[in-house]
Amino acid sequence: MAISVETFFLAPGFQGTLQAQIQQLIAEGILSGRFRRGEKLPSSRKLATHLGVSRITVTLAYTELLANDYLTSRGRSGYYVSENAPVPPSFDPPKPREDRIDWTRALGRRFTGGDTPDKPKDWANYRFPFVYGQTDPSLFDHANWRLCALQALGQKDFTALTADYYDQDDPELVEFIARNTLPRRGIIARPEEILITLGAQNALWIAAQILLTQRRTAAIENPCYHALRDILNQSRCHVDAINVDRDGLNPALISNEADVIFTTPSHQCPTTATMPMDRRHALLEHARNIDALVVEDDYEFEMSFLDAPSPALKSLDTEGRVIYVGSFSKSLFPGLRLGYLVGSEAFIREARALRASVIRHPPGHIQRTAAYFLSLGHYDALIRRIREALKARRAVMQDAIEQYGLTVAGQGAFGGSSFWMRANPEVNTEILAQALKSDGVLIEPGHPFFTDEAPPQNFYRLGYSSIPSERIPEGVSRIARALGQR
Amino acid sequence: MAISVETFFLAPGFQGTLQAQIQQLIAEGILSGRFRRGEKLPSSRKLATHLGVSRITVTLAYTELLANDYLTSRGRSGYYVSENAPVPPSFDPPKPREDRIDWTRALGRRFTGGDTPDKPKDWANYRFPFVYGQTDPSLFDHANWRLCALQALGQKDFTALTADYYDQDDPELVEFIARNTLPRRGIIARPEEILITLGAQNALWIAAQILLTQRRTAAIENPCYHALRDILNQSRCHVDAINVDRDGLNPALISNEADVIFTTPSHQCPTTATMPMDRRHALLEHARNIDALVVEDDYEFEMSFLDAPSPALKSLDTEGRVIYVGSFSKSLFPGLRLGYLVGSEAFIREARALRASVIRHPPGHIQRTAAYFLSLGHYDALIRRIREALKARRAVMQDAIEQYGLTVAGQGAFGGSSFWMRANPEVNTEILAQALKSDGVLIEPGHPFFTDEAPPQNFYRLGYSSIPSERIPEGVSRIARALGQR
Repeated sequence: MAISVETFFLAPGFQGTLQAQIQQLIAEGILSGRFRRGEKLPSSRKLATHLGVSRITVTLAYTELLANDYLTSRGRSGYYVSENAPVPPSFDPPKPREDRIDWTRALGRRFTGGDTPDKPKDWANYRFPFVYGQTDPSLFDHANWRLCALQALGQKDFTALTADYYDQDDPELVEFIARNTLPRRGIIARPEEILITLGAQNALWIAAQILLTQRRTAAIENPCYHALRDILNQSRCHVDAINVDRDGLNPALISNEADVIFTTPSHQCPTTATMPMDRRHALLEHARNIDALVVEDDYEFEMSFLDAPSPALKSLDTEGRVIYVGSFSKSLFPGLRLGYLVGSEAFIREARALRASVIRHPPGHIQRTAAYFLSLGHYDALIRRIREALKARRAVMQDAIEQYGLTVAGQGAFGGSSFWMRANPEVNTEILAQALKSDGVLIEPGHPFFTDEAPPQNFYRLGYSSIPSERIPEGVSRIARALGQR
Repeated sequence: MAISVETFFLAPGFQGTLQAQIQQLIAEGILSGRFRRGEKLPSSRKLATHLGVSRITVTLAYTELLANDYLTSRGRSGYYVSENAPVPPSFDPPKPREDRIDWTRALGRRFTGGDTPDKPKDWANYRFPFVYGQTDPSLFDHANWRLCALQALGQKDFTALTADYYDQDDPELVEFIARNTLPRRGIIARPEEILITLGAQNALWIAAQILLTQRRTAAIENPCYHALRDILNQSRCHVDAINVDRDGLNPALISNEADVIFTTPSHQCPTTATMPMDRRHALLEHARNIDALVVEDDYEFEMSFLDAPSPALKSLDTEGRVIYVGSFSKSLFPGLRLGYLVGSEAFIREARALRASVIRHPPGHIQRTAAYFLSLGHYDALIRRIREALKARRAVMQDAIEQYGLTVAGQGAFGGSSFWMRANPEVNTEILAQALKSDGVLIEPGHPFFTDEAPPQNFYRLGYSSIPSERIPEGVSRIARALGQR
């Protein structure tokens, strides 16, 4: 690649000749790794015009660098970074500028230090990755997604691809969700009651911003999705964490102070408990009595392979009390980052305005590709395939867990993609996870899910969406061995 | 398409027989537009199993609907929504549920009612769209973007496409920005000092969340980008609006109370003024003296076709005082929604954590596609083409504006894609814009850019990125006619 003339600027305060300055610009570019071996420099005429200096100054600088073997000349075709030019040391990045800002004072608010743990980014390099929420490439319908993306990249859809939607969504995607996705959960909604979000997490975040303030109380499940707790802590509301039981959240334990109840009735996160229908009705009634709203995170409902999924809480809601969070990310692929909010128009209006301020709208091309993938039936086929694969894997998991004597702590009625596990009380699963890592096994320590001041350390989660069936028994046996159970 | 069995749920409180309920489910589906003519119903066996009722109940319901001509039977192949079935009235969407929530109380915070005006979504249907910030499809390099997207959709990049990046960015895109894009603005930054955002607006929003609180003061330009004012109003900081002159923001007018200074030195938005180098130095010095940070929105720097762009303010910053906002959206296409923040590591760390909480990360596929498009040189070629087209159009605009006696209020040194215009003081450009709309001409009223309590009504903006050259003279003449100047 040619080095653009536009990367050259003369520094006003430079001490030295123009020629020296030009030499230094080029040498620094090479030493910092910005200019690479074999790259072509601008012609001396071009660079001279750009910098407003005489051409001879540039030529002299180039000649000097030739002598130093930073550059080579290829006759008429010009100057190139020499193949012998010094390589920037890979271990020593360009020295940071001296930062003179007192960032402890300058930062008005901090967002680091939340409860959400760092997850290993190189999980795919481990032989036994019992990680959660990542995709198995062998299950994804890559060919059809590619075709849909191509279609969405066609001339006809150019507008979807390039236009600034302002605060609007892709109408085809919204229509599909209204006509096909939501009815499967028993939900009837008009387009004005639906907002596309950048994944389920974005939907939860938006709901929290709109519904909560420092003076309000959110009731959450304990344990719960740690990123939700980060979101609520940032909104500075009071958080009331309610211990779940084998049927999920117990409405009788929700205090009258709660303004918003966050719940995962289909698959309690992380215990995978399924809330029975009568408790769903009781939850709605309790919410009505204390005049609270309910935010239902219906993640993974498509992964119900043990039994048909129950209708969503939202489908039982006749008052507009439930705000529903759905997502294609988990089931399609997490990197897609598409979800949706369903709620009363008054709420969706505010959500749309907030989203416009924060991100304007999710990229149009992705919305349109998803709309094609959904409406051509590929999504249903994909879900079926994933469901079957997970069902098979779950059976292998179940057998291995029994065989090696591990203890399942949470049990969902409908399936899902993980087991919630309990080790003996003296086990610290954070330390266990570290030890297993060097044995090629990734497990997820459970303590970040808990809101308790002293969270139990002996829980862990085993995901099976990214580990092939044939590796499961060996992986589980290694966990058992590390636990000293074999 | 077949109607999925999963869209059927029995309502627990239904008054009537099971058969009647099934009939009603189907009829309602048809009447609400969810089930469409010609769509296939689930087999009676399947639906019976799903609902847990006897098959004869379903068969009887289907037979009844056959008689009513809601359904037709095609022998062994099953039941279909009849071609004679009632069509849902298009003017009368399904009746909304009765909303029993007092939303005035339930909404903790409101985000609607900001300063950002509604823009016409059907601008492409107007013959003379002097709109700003939309793309001209005829200029975009559609073929190569498609090829890059295809490459990013390939097996090799499957991870980029599907993985949950947690809080990370696409390393190839970040590297390209560090090595190629930023150096053109005179900026050297390490990957730890760069964060990919969902467009420039998202970058501004993130910066405001981190740097501002209710007790802090933001200095902004007046007039300025209205969405920035919305963002700052939401953060509830004190806002100090400083009138710009022909050289943009005058640092001497910034009060000592300012904690963060938001500025657009390359092309002041909306006046298009370019800040001269000496004023840039003065601005940095003033910021240092009052210990304020500077957020530099460097939008449209690539659109400098009248003169080479000045180096960014950030390139003059030796202290980490400047936070730089860049974007590919405006120059590539607004629907892409990719931008970036450059700043000290301490700041970027917080920005990354906040972004992870709000959206996790921008979709991987789009980041990778952009990385290819950039690194293969298509972006540079595109910018050159757009720059030449805009230069030609600007010349036509200039001529027409002179010919028809309109008044340019703001003048940038480097080009851009719009003119900032002033009508006579008695003209209300909001009313003018309305009148011109029915004449096929779209102009942008200027008052939303002003922070004044009584903003001047006689300014307007004329964008020329979406109107072909040959229509410009006629469009400008219509504006002049509406202003009574011909």
